[in-house]
Formats: sequence, structure tokens, C-alpha cells
Amino acid sequence: MSFEASAVTCKGFRFAGVAAGIKKKGGLDVGVIAADAPAAVAAVFTGNRVKAAPVRLSMAALRAARGRARALVVNSGNANACTGRQGAADARAMAAATARAVGARPGEVLVASTGVIGEPLPMARVQAGIAAAGAALTTGGWDDFARAILTTDRQAKTARRSLRVGGHPLTLLGCTKGAGMIAPNMATTLTFVVTDARVAPAALARAPRAAVTPTFNAIAVDGDTSTNDMLAVMASGQTGPALAGKTLAAFTAALTELCADLATQLMRDGEGVHHVVTVRVRGAASARAAHAVARRVATSPLVKTAIAGGDPNWGRILCAVGNAGIALDPDRVGLAIGDVVVVRRGARAPGYDEARAAAVMQAPTYAVTIDLGAGSASASFLACDLSHEYVSINADYRS
Amino acid sequence: MSFEASAVTCKGFRFAGVAAGIKKKGGLDVGVIAADAPAAVAAVFTGNRVKAAPVRLSMAALRAARGRARALVVNSGNANACTGRQGAADARAMAAATARAVGARPGEVLVASTGVIGEPLPMARVQAGIAAAGAALTTGGWDDFARAILTTDRQAKTARRSLRVGGHPLTLLGCTKGAGMIAPNMATTLTFVVTDARVAPAALARAPRAAVTPTFNAIAVDGDTSTNDMLAVMASGQTGPALAGKTLAAFTAALTELCADLATQLMRDGEGVHHVVTVRVRGAASARAAHAVARRVATSPLVKTAIAGGDPNWGRILCAVGNAGIALDPDRVGLAIGDVVVVRRGARAPGYDEARAAAVMQAPTYAVTIDLGAGSASASFLACDLSHEYVSINADYRS
Repeated sequence: MSFEASAVTCKGFRFAGVAAGIKKKGGLDVGVIAADAPAAVAAVFTGNRVKAAPVRLSMAALRAARGRARALVVNSGNANACTGRQGAADARAMAAATARAVGARPGEVLVASTGVIGEPLPMARVQAGIAAAGAALTTGGWDDFARAILTTDRQAKTARRSLRVGGHPLTLLGCTKGAGMIAPNMATTLTFVVTDARVAPAALARAPRAAVTPTFNAIAVDGDTSTNDMLAVMASGQTGPALAGKTLAAFTAALTELCADLATQLMRDGEGVHHVVTVRVRGAASARAAHAVARRVATSPLVKTAIAGGDPNWGRILCAVGNAGIALDPDRVGLAIGDVVVVRRGARAPGYDEARAAAVMQAPTYAVTIDLGAGSASASFLACDLSHEYVSINADYRS
Repeated sequence: MSFEASAVTCKGFRFAGVAAGIKKKGGLDVGVIAADAPAAVAAVFTGNRVKAAPVRLSMAALRAARGRARALVVNSGNANACTGRQGAADARAMAAATARAVGARPGEVLVASTGVIGEPLPMARVQAGIAAAGAALTTGGWDDFARAILTTDRQAKTARRSLRVGGHPLTLLGCTKGAGMIAPNMATTLTFVVTDARVAPAALARAPRAAVTPTFNAIAVDGDTSTNDMLAVMASGQTGPALAGKTLAAFTAALTELCADLATQLMRDGEGVHHVVTVRVRGAASARAAHAVARRVATSPLVKTAIAGGDPNWGRILCAVGNAGIALDPDRVGLAIGDVVVVRRGARAPGYDEARAAAVMQAPTYAVTIDLGAGSASASFLACDLSHEYVSINADYRS
């Protein structure tokens, strides 16, 4: 999809991204989204039991305000995680400063942070950055905001979707950063979506969960879930009729597409990633079983090193299938790498050509299809290689 | 513990290891243990749902013979896994050939295999190897047997324990191979223990499970459980009184010590392993919770790359703790690396000295201690580094 840079706006929102000196390497590191009026907001937060201070604050604020907010502030370069009482006070101070900058109450502000864990926030810089961002807010500031959330990402990751509801063109803008905890100290996947759709908080509440299940929850670089993960959707309600029933479903579908786009960008930009592999599981007894198998295969270190080496070592894939913790008849399992049938009924397929399978694995993207022969449910999951670069980046970063 | 090579015998058993040409790189690759009379046998098998043909055969044989066997045959170089009906027939043929070689019935033989997955066994070589091993059986053949089970291991891994029961000296000999699925296509951890103790099958049945829980089930190189894992204990009953009650407990304790010794050797010999780290969890609400946290920390790719880099990146450890899936108050968590206190009450400890923690992490072995502040249960788990060599070995082996 191509569009003019000047068109990247979303009615009812202003954006800013500024350089506040929090990231050691420099660059934009404080971002603000401000809604002209209280927006409907729904979010999903990390399942990690160790939740960073901004995550705890945002969860509580969203509950107290019953799914509405006026603004969101994010800093990169420091996760404000494992920072104790000081961290909680700092997150509150970020909300208060943002409220002052945009003319809202502190309880109407969501806070997100990403970066190194365990270091106190440099609050003087953060406060100055928030004030500067407040002054820089503009309807065209989306790209600056999207850059302000990055840490070790190689590039900004944004996506856009449009849909028509009752003759009204609705816009969804999304941006994301990171990939699991792949990059050193990054510690966060953050995703933000704004839309001008009119949707009540109660109606919006389920949309993020529905959108992340087949997208952000179906990718893994290293299987570690961070302390700071957050995906928030903010709806200004400036365009079209109130969404419900079919129109809400259409909106959720567009949101899911947007998230799939962003999740794929995340994987491709992951550090040390050369191959993005779609692990498709079909013939499962249930969607849960299909997802469990796809996830296990996609996160197996031995499968991931085989992907890195372009080695059709299919025994490792079947071994990972067997480790998924679901009931399974191994003698019914089938496997294909790209369009090369490798396994039929649990054993090497007659006429299997290893050289052809190895050729498929040279491509930057391809699919591995596993048929469990147990039912009709399916799922897919994005996997990547476990490469030398991954080890270098994560072993050598601070030492 | 040191002992004369000539002393490595166990009353009631003969052993052999021969070179049958199954391993491409050569060396001993068929081993046989033969008992003079039916031995009591107990075993634990892989939890992987994809079980290799020899695993399925041995499970069924042990059940049918109510915990007794006359012999065990093992080949290295080929796992006979994911080999369909041919694989099942080949495992049966191995049992039949061994029965002929030692003068037993096929139902009295256990079979184990280790090596590449998905390739048919070269049965002519296997059959010739079993016949040769049968002819070579000797009371002093333990070391040959221990070498015949190896694949990419750098060295044989054996251990020995003795205990006195009612004035009688009992012997336990153990050997093991592999480390999870760390090495390419190895696909197996196999462990075999013989003893001259007199213990009824029903009494022996629980001993292996008790012994592996804190030992082999508390180590991980890469978290992949193979299709061929097996630990078997064979008791000839040639020495001492029948074990029961306290004497059985003493025997199980000696078996657990033996397994701890072998499991530690496995980790140290793991390919690409430079650091073996004991992850100790204490202050947990339950032993299950303690084990879950220890396992999660020990298998986190980000923790393992930090170990590789000698980087006291403690945020990753707390992040892994939070991902263990147990209830947790992050503000009560404490952490030490060696004797350096890093975290108190969920945040960086006052006076924490990063350089001292980094110095601890240069050692080949050290401990990381996590206190959950939630109770009095504890557990420990052995972790290792995720290194460049691991990626090289597993990515580049066949390509």
C-alpha cells in the first residue's frame, strides 16, 4: 500500500517525538500521542509476572477511567522495570508531566517505557522531553512518534489500514518496535494504534485481544516475554457511525490485518534474523493443540539452528512436535518444507529429495507445514533463525 | 573417587562394546549388557510423544516381563526414530539377535538407539555387531560398553558408587551420553546403571524416577527433550539382603548421587559449553514453583547468552522469573550472583558492584541464587551458556 507522507494523520489526534537524551546513542526517545477529547482505549499488557512500573500504572489508569484516555507518553532507552518504589513514583511523574503538557488530568494518561531494565529513569531529562513533546504536538507528527519508541531496531515499523463504514472512510495507524526480547536490554515489544473510528470503550475492549492472538502472540524470536510489553488502541471517534455488530467485526478484522503487518515487520527487523519461517499446523484436534505445536516448533533451539544452517533436519521438527505436550499419534504426522513433502505417516516420504528441501530453506521466507492427522483445526506461527548474530548481540553487548 | 580399572565390574553382569560400522566416523557403536540370570529392571523413558521404535519396544517388554530382563542392547549412530513400521521391525530384530547371542528369549531384551533421526538402521551391520558383541561379553567390558553408546560426546562419562548394606558391599556402575539434544542429530540422552544389589522389581520400580527428578530432570542445554531418552537400572541380586525400607532408601540415595555425578558430567561435556551455572531458587511457596522458576531461568535464551558473555544483565534473570507461570510478588524477589547481592526486594541492591558480579561470571562454574520471598521451598537446576559453538554445531553440521 502506498500513500503520500502528508496523508499520515488520524482525525482527533496529534503526535510528537523528541530527543531528550535518554538513549545513550541519541535520537528521538520521548513520544506523546494526544487526543483532542477523551478517546476510547483498549490495551493488552505483558503476561510476565514482573511488570514494569509504567505497565502497572497504565493497567490501573485504564481500569479507573473505564477505558478512556486523553494521552499516551512513551520513553525509549530505559524500561523503568525492577526499579521499586522510585520506579512507580517516576511513572506517576511522567503521567503528571504529560497531563500538564496536553491539558488533561494525570489519570487520563497512559505511560509506556522500553529499554534497559533496573536503572532509574533520568527524570530531569524525561520531564524536559515531555514538555518539549507537548510543545511539538502536531497532526503530522506520527512518524516522529513511531521513531521515538525505537531502541535497537534497525528501522521504524509502521502500517496503515483503511476501511469504509456506512460511506465513511476510517483510518487505522499502527507502529511497533522490538521483537520479543531479542535485542540487548530492549526488553519490550510496544505497539500503538490510533483510529478515528467511533467505538465505545466496552465495544473496543475485546478488539486488541482478538487482533493479537493470531499476530503478535504467534511470533517468537526467543520465547522470552518482556516485563514491558503493551499494545494499546486509541479511538478518537471523529469519523463515521458508532461501531457495533458487523461494523465492529470489520474494524476488528482491519485491526488484525494491521497487527499482522506490524508483527511480520518485527520479525524481519529482528537482530540476527535472516529467515522468517511460517510454521503452519493443520489437521489438529483443536485450535489450542495446533497453536501449541506451532509454537513449540517455532521456538525449538534445534529447529531454529537448523533454519540458520538451511539444513532440512526434519527429525528435529518431529521431535519438537512430540514435545508440544498434546496427545498425538506420531504415525499419522506429515511434514512439508515449502512444497517438498518430507514425511508421510510419521516416516520419511518415499522419493523425498533432501536437496530440494535444502534449496527451499535458502529463501528469506518460506513455510513449514505440519499435518497432525487428528482433526481439522489449524494455526500458524512465525519462526526465525537462531544465528551467530543473535548470540553476539546478546552475549557481547555489555561486556 | 579413584579406583583401579580392573575393579570396574558388577557381580552378575557381563558387558561388551564393538565397532559395527554404524557411526560414520567409526568407533564402538554396538553395546550389550548381559545378566547371568534375569535381573530386576526399572526405567524411565522420554516424555516426548514421538517415541523412537526402541523406546516403544523397551516400554512394552518391561511391562510384559513385569520388571525383569536378561539383556540390553544399544546402538549409536542411528536413533531408529520416525522410521515407521520398518523401524519397529528393526527394533524387534535387534532384540531377537541379542536374545540369540546371550541365550535368552527376545522378550527379555531391552533395546536403545541413539543418533540420526529418520534414517533406516543398517541392519546387516547391526546384526553382525550384536553377534560380535555377544562373543565379546566379559565381566570387565564396562568401559567398552560406555564408549559404545557415545555419539558426538567428547569423552565417555561413567561413575561409580558403593554402599554397605548389612555388612555387604554393594556396587552401582553408571554411564551416560549426550546432553539434551545439544549435539547435532544425537537426539538422545541414554543412561544405564547396573548394580549387584538384590531388589525386587516392585521395590526397584520407583528408584529411577526418584533419582532423575533432582538430577537428569534438572539440567538443560537447550530444553529439547529427545525421542529416544531412556534411563535404565538393572539389578542382578548377587550381593546382600533384599532391599526394603531403610536399605532401599539408602540404595535410592546412592543411585541419586550417581545420577547427579553423571548429569554434571553431561553438562560439562556439552558441545559449546564453557560455563555450568547452578540456578538455585529458594523462598518458594512450593517445590513445584521453585522448580518452575529454576527451569525457566536456566532455559531462557537471554539468560544463556548473558552467561556466554559473562554479563551480569540481571534484568533478564528477573524477566525470566516473571515468565515462569507461577504466582509471584516481584517486590519481594532477591537475587545474588555468586556471593554478590544484586537485587533486594525487586530492585537493585544498595551498593551493588557490577564489576564484582562480572568477575564471578568468568568462572567455569558458579551459582545464581534467587529468593522469591514467598515460602520455604527450594530447587536447583543446572544451566549452561548459549554460545557461538552451539550455533555452529547445530546450524552447520549437515549443510
